[in-house]
Amino acid sequence: MSELRRDPIIGRWVVIDPSRNFNKIAVSDSDVYPKDHSGCPFCPGNESMTRPEILAYSSNPKRLPNTPGWNLRVIPNNQPIFAIEGILKKRAEGMYDRMDGIGAHEIIIETAEHEVKTRTPENYETVYKAAMERIKDLRNDTRLEYILFFQNRGAAANAVFEHPHSQLLATPIVPKRIREEINGGKNYFTYKERCVFCDIVSQEISDETRLVAENDLFIAVCPYASRYPFETWIIPKNHGSDFDAVPGKDIISFSKISQTVFSKLGNVLDNPAYNVMIHTGPLKEKDLPYYHWHMEISPRLARPAGFEWGTGLYVNPVAPEEAAKYLRESE
Amino acid sequence: MSELRRDPIIGRWVVIDPSRNFNKIAVSDSDVYPKDHSGCPFCPGNESMTRPEILAYSSNPKRLPNTPGWNLRVIPNNQPIFAIEGILKKRAEGMYDRMDGIGAHEIIIETAEHEVKTRTPENYETVYKAAMERIKDLRNDTRLEYILFFQNRGAAANAVFEHPHSQLLATPIVPKRIREEINGGKNYFTYKERCVFCDIVSQEISDETRLVAENDLFIAVCPYASRYPFETWIIPKNHGSDFDAVPGKDIISFSKISQTVFSKLGNVLDNPAYNVMIHTGPLKEKDLPYYHWHMEISPRLARPAGFEWGTGLYVNPVAPEEAAKYLRESE
Repeated sequence: MSELRRDPIIGRWVVIDPSRNFNKIAVSDSDVYPKDHSGCPFCPGNESMTRPEILAYSSNPKRLPNTPGWNLRVIPNNQPIFAIEGILKKRAEGMYDRMDGIGAHEIIIETAEHEVKTRTPENYETVYKAAMERIKDLRNDTRLEYILFFQNRGAAANAVFEHPHSQLLATPIVPKRIREEINGGKNYFTYKERCVFCDIVSQEISDETRLVAENDLFIAVCPYASRYPFETWIIPKNHGSDFDAVPGKDIISFSKISQTVFSKLGNVLDNPAYNVMIHTGPLKEKDLPYYHWHMEISPRLARPAGFEWGTGLYVNPVAPEEAAKYLRESE
Repeated sequence: MSELRRDPIIGRWVVIDPSRNFNKIAVSDSDVYPKDHSGCPFCPGNESMTRPEILAYSSNPKRLPNTPGWNLRVIPNNQPIFAIEGILKKRAEGMYDRMDGIGAHEIIIETAEHEVKTRTPENYETVYKAAMERIKDLRNDTRLEYILFFQNRGAAANAVFEHPHSQLLATPIVPKRIREEINGGKNYFTYKERCVFCDIVSQEISDETRLVAENDLFIAVCPYASRYPFETWIIPKNHGSDFDAVPGKDIISFSKISQTVFSKLGNVLDNPAYNVMIHTGPLKEKDLPYYHWHMEISPRLARPAGFEWGTGLYVNPVAPEEAAKYLRESE
């Protein structure tokens, strides 16, 4: 017997059905990425293959821009979804609405190494700090409404490049899923006078069954209404709606739990492909009492059933309690 | 320069960016389906491989159930997402909500032929009539809230079986996407006192640029804010919220335009994989003035960018005007 579970934030029902067959994603990294990565545009020595860097971290103070010697490098995407030049030109077309694709699309090259075997918490910290630095700068552009931090890892997660990288997509609209979470959070707050994410943190710590990891300031859980097998969220214990407002010492805890969670996912699922996303508040709605930033990690293991695309009704063949147990017990 | 377009029904923004590279879906039917289809459970002679039939159409009045001689056959899914036996047992789990997976999951085997070369409007009519007959019967079960008609064709659309089939999924909840469309339609109706879909039909007929086909009672269009390349909707000109309430003579027109549209998609895209869905009103909300049933066809050509999964922000590399032009000019 399958079970329907309701996401407490946006009200989406998902089907949890452990009796179901699992259609594995067929594509593998070796099908997609070349073995010889000397042509990788993100590797040191190939700096001229990318557009000029926006930001770089280096231990050599004399390093010149766009030359090797960096530990992390931020560049504009060569194929940006949104361009920084131009004006929005919001306009009607009969009953329809449109605007130009103004925004920014940057790539954070997370490390000089093409293949990283083991990651330290410090690696994560560098990436998060670079993302925060870029978000703070992009906040000055009043045309922008939202900045999305995301990572695609592996061919099954549709990562175009193999070299470890994150992306920042700054958009002139608030993406639909974020708006749904904010509206859901607002409704919950109106009714309960509490943040729904804060309540989730409390319940998950006391339930323990879906808990993957916990430290002083963060928990990692497989959410109650997980859409995907081994879906995992990292949620801060302290309330805050804006990722880029998190104090530096809290980022150290966030980096530590990130390292723990990705190490566990790598061990249990044998280095899966995954998509990562930081859900944070809109640029022009700061310090919301009813929204709570968090990170969502979706391993790409199972192919979706056809109707998931069109209905938003997800079928998940792995109960989150089962996934969390595996992850909790692994290193 | 990309462009942002807003869906007038649910308010979702999509990015239309014809300058973008198109990452084709890698999986092909020959990778997934066996060449020898003598073991196909949907082929005549293999009736014992399925659960006993619920409905069958045959030109032989003496045919016995679960034997060959049928033209169309409806069976319960061997691996149902929802089961018909049991009670819902809605219950709380702390702050969370759950219920048992009660419902129905049926398969319409559309034809006795495993490989169908050309389809007639009559083929479509038979399938739609069987679906309507089953929906009318399932309406008697008061535990059910919604019935979804959908088709997955081809490996890239995650069809488990190659033999042409549709599915009916009866659920104890209204799927999220449908609820969004109904709420969006209600908001538009409150403001304009008109159905948003009726307005779309008028504007698309007068604009012509996104029109794929038209007959006495239906239009086929590539929607203004298409999420996918060559996404196509079939919308009835006459207002009505319930698919199973459509009169028989209208179904003839629906079958004719279906045959036209799928023939065009097959010719232009070389028999693509696709997902089809009929969006209709919830079972317990009949004759809604602000909702309008329709069919959504999503060819599966491009791999999604990673962030589409988590944000609902779709990037479509083919403008609907361009797609519609190709389809309009093809047979």
